Amino acid sequence: MKANNTASLLKDGKELNTFTRPASDMQAERDRTSFPVREMTHFFNNGKENTEFLEKLFERIQRDPAFNNKDFYDLDYKPLRQRTFEQIGRMWSYLDELGADSPLARRFLSPFGMINPSAQTRVSVHYGLFVSALRGQGTDKQYEFWKSQGCLSLNRFYGCFGMTELGHGSNVAELETTATFDRATDEFIIHTPNTAATKWWIGGAAHSSNHTVCFARLIVDGKDYGVRNFVVPLRDPESHNLLPGIAVGDIGKKMGRDGIDNGWIQFSNVRIPRTYMLMRYSQVTPEGKVIEPPLAQLTYGALINGRVAMAYDSWVWARRFLTIALRYAAVRRQFSSTEGREESKLLDYVLHQRRLIPLLAQAIGIEAAATELYRLFDEVTHHQASLDTSDRKAVSDMVDKTKELFSLSAGLKAFSTWATVDTIDECRQACGGLGYLSATGFGQGFDDWVVNCTWEGDNNVLCLSAGRSLIQSGCKVLDGKHVTGAADYLGRIKTLRGKSLASGDLRDPKVLVGAWESVAAQAVMDAAEAYKKLRARGVSDKAAFEELSIDRFNIARLHTRCFQIKALFRKIANANPSIQKVLTNVGLLFALWSIEKNGSPFLQYGFLTSDDMNKVIDLVTFYCGEVRDQVIGITDSFNISDFFLNSPIGNYDGNAYENLMDSVTERNVPGTPCPYQDAMNAFFKRTPYEQPRLDEI
Amino acid sequence: MKANNTASLLKDGKELNTFTRPASDMQAERDRTSFPVREMTHFFNNGKENTEFLEKLFERIQRDPAFNNKDFYDLDYKPLRQRTFEQIGRMWSYLDELGADSPLARRFLSPFGMINPSAQTRVSVHYGLFVSALRGQGTDKQYEFWKSQGCLSLNRFYGCFGMTELGHGSNVAELETTATFDRATDEFIIHTPNTAATKWWIGGAAHSSNHTVCFARLIVDGKDYGVRNFVVPLRDPESHNLLPGIAVGDIGKKMGRDGIDNGWIQFSNVRIPRTYMLMRYSQVTPEGKVIEPPLAQLTYGALINGRVAMAYDSWVWARRFLTIALRYAAVRRQFSSTEGREESKLLDYVLHQRRLIPLLAQAIGIEAAATELYRLFDEVTHHQASLDTSDRKAVSDMVDKTKELFSLSAGLKAFSTWATVDTIDECRQACGGLGYLSATGFGQGFDDWVVNCTWEGDNNVLCLSAGRSLIQSGCKVLDGKHVTGAADYLGRIKTLRGKSLASGDLRDPKVLVGAWESVAAQAVMDAAEAYKKLRARGVSDKAAFEELSIDRFNIARLHTRCFQIKALFRKIANANPSIQKVLTNVGLLFALWSIEKNGSPFLQYGFLTSDDMNKVIDLVTFYCGEVRDQVIGITDSFNISDFFLNSPIGNYDGNAYENLMDSVTERNVPGTPCPYQDAMNAFFKRTPYEQPRLDEI
Ligand SMILES: Cc1cc2nc3c(=O)[nH]c(=O)nc-3n(C[C@H](O)[C@H](O)[C@H](O)COP(=O)(O)OP(=O)(O)OC[C@H]3O[C@@H](n4cnc5c(N)ncnc54)[C@H](O)[C@@H]3O)c2cc1C
Ligand SMILES: Cc1cc2nc3c(=O)[nH]c(=O)nc-3n(C[C@H](O)[C@H](O)[C@H](O)COP(=O)(O)OP(=O)(O)OC[C@H]3O[C@@H](n4cnc5c(N)ncnc54)[C@H](O)[C@@H]3O)c2cc1C
Repeated sequence: MKANNTASLLKDGKELNTFTRPASDMQAERDRTSFPVREMTHFFNNGKENTEFLEKLFERIQRDPAFNNKDFYDLDYKPLRQRTFEQIGRMWSYLDELGADSPLARRFLSPFGMINPSAQTRVSVHYGLFVSALRGQGTDKQYEFWKSQGCLSLNRFYGCFGMTELGHGSNVAELETTATFDRATDEFIIHTPNTAATKWWIGGAAHSSNHTVCFARLIVDGKDYGVRNFVVPLRDPESHNLLPGIAVGDIGKKMGRDGIDNGWIQFSNVRIPRTYMLMRYSQVTPEGKVIEPPLAQLTYGALINGRVAMAYDSWVWARRFLTIALRYAAVRRQFSSTEGREESKLLDYVLHQRRLIPLLAQAIGIEAAATELYRLFDEVTHHQASLDTSDRKAVSDMVDKTKELFSLSAGLKAFSTWATVDTIDECRQACGGLGYLSATGFGQGFDDWVVNCTWEGDNNVLCLSAGRSLIQSGCKVLDGKHVTGAADYLGRIKTLRGKSLASGDLRDPKVLVGAWESVAAQAVMDAAEAYKKLRARGVSDKAAFEELSIDRFNIARLHTRCFQIKALFRKIANANPSIQKVLTNVGLLFALWSIEKNGSPFLQYGFLTSDDMNKVIDLVTFYCGEVRDQVIGITDSFNISDFFLNSPIGNYDGNAYENLMDSVTERNVPGTPCPYQDAMNAFFKRTPYEQPRLDEI
Repeated sequence: MKANNTASLLKDGKELNTFTRPASDMQAERDRTSFPVREMTHFFNNGKENTEFLEKLFERIQRDPAFNNKDFYDLDYKPLRQRTFEQIGRMWSYLDELGADSPLARRFLSPFGMINPSAQTRVSVHYGLFVSALRGQGTDKQYEFWKSQGCLSLNRFYGCFGMTELGHGSNVAELETTATFDRATDEFIIHTPNTAATKWWIGGAAHSSNHTVCFARLIVDGKDYGVRNFVVPLRDPESHNLLPGIAVGDIGKKMGRDGIDNGWIQFSNVRIPRTYMLMRYSQVTPEGKVIEPPLAQLTYGALINGRVAMAYDSWVWARRFLTIALRYAAVRRQFSSTEGREESKLLDYVLHQRRLIPLLAQAIGIEAAATELYRLFDEVTHHQASLDTSDRKAVSDMVDKTKELFSLSAGLKAFSTWATVDTIDECRQACGGLGYLSATGFGQGFDDWVVNCTWEGDNNVLCLSAGRSLIQSGCKVLDGKHVTGAADYLGRIKTLRGKSLASGDLRDPKVLVGAWESVAAQAVMDAAEAYKKLRARGVSDKAAFEELSIDRFNIARLHTRCFQIKALFRKIANANPSIQKVLTNVGLLFALWSIEKNGSPFLQYGFLTSDDMNKVIDLVTFYCGEVRDQVIGITDSFNISDFFLNSPIGNYDGNAYENLMDSVTERNVPGTPCPYQDAMNAFFKRTPYEQPRLDEI
């Protein structure tokens, strides 16, 4: 049912077209676009072929009734879990065609998160964590074996990732579940020694999966070798009944992602064959000899996949909500900023521009950096797959690359996911009250998104570890050694230290990159020197790093932002000339606004004077103005259809109020009786109770 | 049903008491408290009597089955609306005893928001908006009349607040609903002239209320006099059926506060008696003569109540989530910061201290400022009630006070509610994954809270208007006039300008207050001078203010923070000596951390050198450490019972894991069959379809 909309009416002889005008306002905005939108789409998708691949996929998804998302925001968590499972079944057919194991699948999954992030997660937990662990941690033979059991075809098979316990999340090395080797039977005994060792949060455990990759302490002959990965069957693939010794429970409703059936698992002396331990980097022989892995981090390799994906998803999600908020800003009028009666578009308010347009620039910077990160990730995975573990030089190269991947992805995952938290919330607030209505998508989006700050590496813990790597790189430089990778600019500390803007032009990308490198490098090197001093004073390694934890956090922030800015300018330099001008404005805005937001170190290191800083602030306002006319073109170039946006105030046609009114009255049919009328009658029509008088006793 | 917890077990001869240890850790923390907790409780409640009043109330609420909140986080929005209504019915009996009209009711409502914020809102919309409008905007006779109709007793009566329209929220002056005077019948005709003029968001309209205060344009003899308030009956009090000409719909699910039945309303030439226009400040005579109000803002007075309450609620909510996160930090161990095997409490990590303890200090600062704001509010309301509108001097005083209240409450509402958004989210993240579980309360809390940034004055719009008032005050100072109220320090600009820390001690409250006044005053006066220059260049008033919108925002931020810091130190100065030491550390932390967060202007105005700023940063870390041992005592002194906290990881006993495990298994009974087993079977046991071969045609 549709709302009984009435057309605009005359009042005082003037036509009130508040309701229908937005659509024409939107067209006028669109006409201002000064660049070829299609070219920009290819820029964001990193190539024409990708654009075309995605469009074909999107077309099919939008038509597929399994992915109808009209009622998505209204579903309670129980029906949502079922819906999510059904969608997984359907997604599987797509994945099967693409090759569940292929990089194309990644491109499929990320936008799918816009329809139902829980379905994306449930599929990712299986393919991205469980299967990745088999592939990355298992020998080739082991991987082949599990494939033969159905781990790719999902026939009678669904995996979950059993790492976290009630008592331990970030500190994987101290997990308490045990895997004790029994030489007599050539088996491991998997056991939960106390309640805090209960596996907790395990996505898929509550209902759907029948196997887990269990993180457990390897115990051989009473000796504790630390944490390794074991495949443990949980449910009978035929009956789906829990296997003996396995206890499982549902951990219940969450802030978001309620389509995932997160559960807890307790193991009571569950026996698995020795060969179920994943033995690519570390082995236990039938005799009980333990071969240690070359690098502990290799054991947790499965998580890196998720981190890289989240850095990229930060862009996928930010662009969606920015599209909604910017389109709404282009048609919503409120107050007027100039004399005269007509109200102004929100997009014309300087404050509104400054709230949203830098976030748009930031999202574009996040994409550029995440795409570089994906390249490094692909390289490392490729190396890993073809690695001859007996070749020591190859292993050592591999270890170096893996460390670089760990430290770069840590910072990018943390700061990109946080940036998108802020972006979604700012976009919501920018839509006023309507941002709070479920129908516009912000609430669900926020609640589903924020978990990215916590899982697969808590952001703060990741920052500390990125900061540690940076200090280590800084120490290398102090020791006269060569540093490669994202922190290579530390090698130029001599020229970077004490640099100032002087007569440099703040509108020159080179100058801004120099500014960021100078400030980030000084901060990192100061921390490295402080670390060396503490060590020289006899402070232990651990205590020294703890003492520097705030510095570690801060240098991770500066370094990561510096990397994003450089990545964006690198990407722009290679862009089609027809879009370089607008992109350069975007890049400058990103770099300048980032300085404004992190003002103190630029002033403290003397890169900028107080006057320069005022210039930075003015330039941020200036570039917001420069980009303002292009924002509708840019959001169009994101190429997100109304179906994927799923927000009536963000539709392409700009017809915000009519679309909203239709959507609201379709979901909530006017005239539906109030379901608690009886309760209302009981209250409204009550007769107040009065104690009967009893005067004489 | 309880979980099958097993006690801690021996492993490798060592007792693993990860699960049960938290309770003893908590006791040890509690023992460190160095101040009388009860005294601190009185400090936060502003007096022993208030503490005792609240405790009596809380006791009764906790026992009342109507307020059982065990399943609160799991309720879908439809049952939540019914539950909320039932709770309103129950709350009414409390309010009736306290006097629905009394300031005591305020103390009742605010903590009730911890149980079910939607119930708090639905009651506030009626008493705080609807009834306040009758009392504040209506004549005494009108108020008496509506009381006689049941507006206080809620017998066959429930009001809603019909201000916002689809097309207009912040810009109340441009609302489009019309109230046309019909002299012939002595009536107003209330009409929705086009769809964008549909009343939108109206809390209570969808189901429960039968009257609204409708904001509509007063039209007499074709002349538009701007917006006034009219009481419009919506539903028949007996049958609860919609009255003729009234169309109503449900606007559906929201990000949070789903217990409120927000709706839309369209009026089709609905007639009400002339006397239903609220005529305290502006009147229409039977002849159609219009008497204008002395100050437009007086017409929107009802909203001010909500703003003041939200500034105060920012404290009520922040302290709740801080209690949970700090208690969890005191018992959760993860990694170790020192050599040796034992893991450290989160509370012992400098980064964790710095994430949470300044937010604790900020919450305490928010309380002090909000309490001062409440005092001003009470004063103004008192004046208003006793105002003789024919006494011009009294009216002009009243207008001044009202303006002060508007501008101070604008900044405090905006920055306090935002601070609590950040606090809830940081507290959630500080609990790692568990912060994302519904059972711990953060998700619901965040979603319910954030709307405070938008309704009853959008925060950004409020900041712009607070900034405008500050510039106006600055101009007064430039003109040699006297400024009173919260901005009085601008009058001392001569001594404040160019001040620097020099040899001042950053650990001295006076020095810090001086720092904040100096920087805030310079920023305000610079903006005022810029404004004057623009005006002198012939720029219009509107355009000049628009040009300065970023400055307006920034000065509102600095001024508001300065006010909060001063309010806190004022309150501490009057505190019982036994708690002054710890409170002073809290105050210093608040002031110093606020400088760190807003570093640029302190460096730019030269109040601090780069070295000073490093000292500030070190001192923040230092005072976090000073307060660290007292945080459990401080959270205890907040006096929030486990019932009101409603978060098993935040309970008083510290037994986080056991309480959580119990709560989770009680809500989600292990062994419950999966409700979508059929869907799983259909997928897992499918036989892949293959197209039958057709070779010859
Ligand atoms: C929806 C959801 C789904 C999940 N799915 C899975 C799954 O399928 N499989 C799985 O194995 N896990 C899963 N997880 C668990 C997730 O990986 C963990 O929550 C995450 O690793 C963080 O661990 P934690 O929750 O124990 O937090 P903790 O490690 O306890 O951290 C708590 C807080 O302490 C801080 N902190 C910790 N150490 C330090 C330090 N040294 N210095 C300073 N601060 C510190 C952190 O920053 C954090 O704020 C899931 C979690 C969620 C929320
Ligand atoms: C849950 C909920 C319940 C509500 N209940 C009621 C109710 O019972 N009765 C009622 O009458 N109303 C109610 N409201 C409406 C609420 O009062 C409005 O949402 C609020 O006033 C903001 O107005 P708006 O939504 O139209 O936002 P807009 O005014 O359209 O603002 C949109 C955005 O534009 C920005 N903006 C606006 N003007 C300017 C400017 N001049 N310069 C720069 N930026 C600007 C704002 O900062 C905001 O981010 C409710 C709202 C919600 C969310």
